[in-house]
Amino acid sequence: MTGSSGKRLYVALIHHPVIDKHGETIASAVTNLDLHDIARVCRTYGVNGYYVITPLKDQMVLVNRIIDHWITGVGSTYNPNRQQALELVRVKATTAEMIGEITEAEGRRPRTVATTARRREGSLSYRRLREMLVDAAPVVLAFGTAWGLSDAFMADADFILDPLTGAGTYNHLSVRSAVSIILDRVLGGEI
Amino acid sequence: MTGSSGKRLYVALIHHPVIDKHGETIASAVTNLDLHDIARVCRTYGVNGYYVITPLKDQMVLVNRIIDHWITGVGSTYNPNRQQALELVRVKATTAEMIGEITEAEGRRPRTVATTARRREGSLSYRRLREMLVDAAPVVLAFGTAWGLSDAFMADADFILDPLTGAGTYNHLSVRSAVSIILDRVLGGEI
Repeated sequence: MTGSSGKRLYVALIHHPVIDKHGETIASAVTNLDLHDIARVCRTYGVNGYYVITPLKDQMVLVNRIIDHWITGVGSTYNPNRQQALELVRVKATTAEMIGEITEAEGRRPRTVATTARRREGSLSYRRLREMLVDAAPVVLAFGTAWGLSDAFMADADFILDPLTGAGTYNHLSVRSAVSIILDRVLGGEI
Repeated sequence: MTGSSGKRLYVALIHHPVIDKHGETIASAVTNLDLHDIARVCRTYGVNGYYVITPLKDQMVLVNRIIDHWITGVGSTYNPNRQQALELVRVKATTAEMIGEITEAEGRRPRTVATTARRREGSLSYRRLREMLVDAAPVVLAFGTAWGLSDAFMADADFILDPLTGAGTYNHLSVRSAVSIILDRVLGGEI
């Protein structure tokens, strides 16, 4: 079964640097449902923290207002399940700030694993990532919004995870679906 | 690998009869993102059709307008990937109408599998469902919106699928996450 592997895992939802439809690097907008859906799946699989990375000040304010509503505001009594999920969310302006915070909390630098829908040379298998999570060292699993993580972000990551593939060549999953499936693959129990 | 098992599978998103927070049977509202996220994951895993069940006339009109926008409207040229996904969506007023349409198309009545977050006696394992999809007979996998499928719906289903479990007792996944994970479990390739 799952055990405590999730305690070594952090999920990061990146809003910058990501690419748009034309391949240009942009900062995308945070969406309410990305916060909720991904926090709920992180909580279900015992992930240690869910980082939302956005350099945009107004977006940081928005995310913190949503979180406050559900953690200490009226949402906390309306739906305590959401409270438990959204408690995992931390907002940071940059990936470097996130890495710094995790390094301080864990006493060692986390390894970073980037996700992509495209196949890359030497990518990491789900089986190997699952094994990595049994080790003591923390891991950050990074997901891009919009049209995905920028090449610069991918180049900086320690590992790139195998893309998800389904029945054919179509693999245009939402980031919410991708996070859900990948967490089940690396932290889910025997089926 | 996955093969053609998805060709025997239909996904149904039920908006009635489902229960609300207090256990009362209601008709829930269709959401735009349920259409998109679930259509995209259905398309990725090669599912044969994605039925949206709602008895509410205005909701049926809304869903058909959204689908038309992406299949034949400006959305079809803006993002052809969405077109390919939303082509799978069919809207019906009742589960019975859906069963009738599938029975006519397939030449045999589909078996129905209901999903729930709660454990039930004699529920179907993911492994067994995966095996069922290798058979020729079609299967409808039904998901409830709001607080889940009603007891009456569950009682009518041929099978009830094992609940998804994560690392602990928390399993308050969004229906979008649940569909994504379950399709990967029953149609995904070796990892």
